Amino acid sequence: MKPLFARLAIVGVGLIGGSLAAAARAAGLVGEVVGLGRSEANLRVARERGLIDRVAREPAAVGAVDAIVLAVPVGACRQVAEALRPHVPAGTLLTDVGSVKASVVRALEEAWAGVGPVVGAHPIAGSEESGAGAARVDLFRDHRCIITRTPTTDRSAIERVRALWEGVGMQVEEMAPDDHDAILARVSHAPHLVAYALMAAAGGAHVAGRSALDYAGSGLRDTTRIAASRPEVWRDIALANTPAVRAALAEFRAALDTLEGLVAAGDGPRLESALASARALRQRLGGDPET
Amino acid sequence: MKPLFARLAIVGVGLIGGSLAAAARAAGLVGEVVGLGRSEANLRVARERGLIDRVAREPAAVGAVDAIVLAVPVGACRQVAEALRPHVPAGTLLTDVGSVKASVVRALEEAWAGVGPVVGAHPIAGSEESGAGAARVDLFRDHRCIITRTPTTDRSAIERVRALWEGVGMQVEEMAPDDHDAILARVSHAPHLVAYALMAAAGGAHVAGRSALDYAGSGLRDTTRIAASRPEVWRDIALANTPAVRAALAEFRAALDTLEGLVAAGDGPRLESALASARALRQRLGGDPET
Repeated sequence: MKPLFARLAIVGVGLIGGSLAAAARAAGLVGEVVGLGRSEANLRVARERGLIDRVAREPAAVGAVDAIVLAVPVGACRQVAEALRPHVPAGTLLTDVGSVKASVVRALEEAWAGVGPVVGAHPIAGSEESGAGAARVDLFRDHRCIITRTPTTDRSAIERVRALWEGVGMQVEEMAPDDHDAILARVSHAPHLVAYALMAAAGGAHVAGRSALDYAGSGLRDTTRIAASRPEVWRDIALANTPAVRAALAEFRAALDTLEGLVAAGDGPRLESALASARALRQRLGGDPET
Repeated sequence: MKPLFARLAIVGVGLIGGSLAAAARAAGLVGEVVGLGRSEANLRVARERGLIDRVAREPAAVGAVDAIVLAVPVGACRQVAEALRPHVPAGTLLTDVGSVKASVVRALEEAWAGVGPVVGAHPIAGSEESGAGAARVDLFRDHRCIITRTPTTDRSAIERVRALWEGVGMQVEEMAPDDHDAILARVSHAPHLVAYALMAAAGGAHVAGRSALDYAGSGLRDTTRIAASRPEVWRDIALANTPAVRAALAEFRAALDTLEGLVAAGDGPRLESALASARALRQRLGGDPET
């Protein structure tokens, strides 16, 4: 059977890009996979692990491909698209995997105007790990992928991108870029900033000559795991989705104010009730013990 | 060899109390273990799992024991001590496992005056799980335990409590109750409230008819895992350590303000640097991937 993409370029062969390469190949969705990236060492790992067939050391070396997947920090997307633009044939599909969609898709549509279709996508999978060494063939399986539609998005290009992500096991859903960004600000972007802030505050605390951090248990370790994520990635996301992130932070602060107000008032019954409501929401997330 | 405690009573045979029973028995530190608690079903599980030798259905049935360990929510400690007081022989050692020490130890010293020595302890181990069914013999191994000293704490009683926790594998350290509470507010109590608030905010968010929570990835799941903890436990802790918890929340808010200010200002370099500093602190916590 003819693969979905005879030749696919992936820019940024890290956790997401590398896992996509591995999963798309395993599912027979791609012929040749070309990898592009800044780090020679990482590309070597990607090559040695068999994630990619060929390394392109610069945009001119990508050659004719059917589609390009940008798997770089969102702040780098426009610049990478502009660098690739002179070297690809007309009709080349451009897509991305960024955690922010409105500003990124707008930038890519501008940078790619006259070249080919642009489809924004966000596979909601990953971890605080990074690099080709962390790539896994099953990273995407049973997770959600959001594909964004703008007034100009090409329908058949959407279908090809959908087939790629469904082909690696994802549940694909289409929505407007702004809706995506509002949702992800609440469940991912703001929580990352909160985790970094928790870490900064707890890490800076000293009591009677002791570092508070030395007494942390598994609770703080879990709560701040995402603060081990790459700073440049989350810098870019926060800056590319600032209004929604700030709105989400405002909602979080209001929730924290409510809890702190009940603590300050010594209102045990209402505090317990508020904590129980939050716990009930947490249980909808799954992955809990049965208690 | 003679065990450390010929007869030990544990009030609250849940995750902590039940694990202590199992670990102390496995280490040969106790003869008979008597279990007390509110839930008949839980005590039955504790008995069937062999965590305890005997169930005492009421304080009068505890009988003569060498020591009593309170493993109940911190808000219940004083009342439980007062209920036990008329039924125990003079000299009975009273200790606890609460996550708050100053107010709890003060209450226990008052309630136990004229009975026997009181030693506050806090084994820093656990999870969001609860109940005798979750108890594990290795729960405490290689974790820290803090034992508190007050001007009146009996030295030989401290040594017996230290031997108990060291005997189940913990690294024991002594400190003043206020220092304990200031530290734990930073690394545990405030982070729990933050996790509950994150969950409340994200759980309440709806965008264009969609529940944001349906799009949460593993990041939010980890960050809010501790919001699956028992509400009555964290209600009690917050109310028993209010000034330190509020001070810790103020430090956290300041750290979040700093990050949000850099986002609002679009200051990429300083934002990245602040995130990188938090990440470096996170890496001191351990349990990270090698990235």
